[in-house]
Amino acid sequence: MPHLLIEYSAGLEGRADVALLCKRLYETMAANDIFPLAGIRVRAYRADHAIVADALPENDFAALTLNVGAGRSVDVLKAAGDELFAVAREVLKEPLATPHFALSLQIRVADPELSWKDTPIHARLSGRK
Amino acid sequence: MPHLLIEYSAGLEGRADVALLCKRLYETMAANDIFPLAGIRVRAYRADHAIVADALPENDFAALTLNVGAGRSVDVLKAAGDELFAVAREVLKEPLATPHFALSLQIRVADPELSWKDTPIHARLSGRK
Amino acid sequence: MPHLLIEYSAGLEGRADVALLCKRLYETMAANDIFPLAGIRVRAYRADHAIVADALPENDFAALTLNVGAGRSVDVLKAAGDELFAVAREVLKEPLATPHFALSLQIRVADPELSWKDTPIHARLSGRK
Repeated sequence: MPHLLIEYSAGLEGRADVALLCKRLYETMAANDIFPLAGIRVRAYRADHAIVADALPENDFAALTLNVGAGRSVDVLKAAGDELFAVAREVLKEPLATPHFALSLQIRVADPELSWKDTPIHARLSGRK
Repeated sequence: MPHLLIEYSAGLEGRADVALLCKRLYETMAANDIFPLAGIRVRAYRADHAIVADALPENDFAALTLNVGAGRSVDVLKAAGDELFAVAREVLKEPLATPHFALSLQIRVADPELSWKDTPIHARLSGRK
Repeated sequence: MPHLLIEYSAGLEGRADVALLCKRLYETMAANDIFPLAGIRVRAYRADHAIVADALPENDFAALTLNVGAGRSVDVLKAAGDELFAVAREVLKEPLATPHFALSLQIRVADPELSWKDTPIHARLSGRK
């Protein structure tokens, strides 16, 4: 953790740079002290089918879900969410300037008793520091 | 919100009309007063790998997950789920008539303090009314 | 339920056998008495974009999420998670032996009041026993 999942409609690829969206959100997480670098996973999935709001074919969406481990206050998570959402809005300002786009972010907190990880990357990063 | 995620196995595309499934579920959500039209996102993802129940290659699945905002009673959500599930069963009656299909629906309630949205579509829809 | 979702980066396909990973995890679930066979769905999704840990292009990830119904103790779920994670580590021992891979598992418990299912496979399996 933290894991950021980005779901989006296929049409967004013609209206924004999804790879850049991933990169900017990744950089924001990496720069935030509350998130361990070795735990970051940003991944994006283009939907095979999508219907958004009033179902116009030109409507697109990006739905971000951040899964984090337990142990941080709601205020800390809200601040992290505010920061990520601001970055997403900046990268997606062009579709957001049209009436045919919907952006959302949700944070979910995982149960620490029901989480497992094995991240050899972690040892490499620890060794580097 | 509400966001409806449909995960399905590749084989289902030859046994049912997945685009129609999305459309009918969308229409059901759009017609339900508890769901704001501008908040609806229906999206479907075909799995790259899938193993269902007793692992026969002819087994397929569709797993629906509805994410909604907080503030509705369990009874209201159950009624909405009943309605969506009935529609899904109707569209998928052919695979459901065989012993090689599995359909499921789950509703999850999001934490309102940890949700963000920016939906210019909303202004357009408000302006229209 | 149980539903096992496997998300992974595209590069993992050249470093491990994702179909085998699904198969071994499926077999582990099928052999575990706490999981009804008819309820098992294992599905895997290759991400369209992914950035892992320190963002090296050779970093890959596999993120497993097990969704189960309510009614089992945390200890029972932890034992099931331990078993699944051990199997995943065995199948993925080659990427795990490198400093460029990250494996995780999380278990989530679904609200039984907000779950629906229609599994004709279940009748077939019941009839067989």
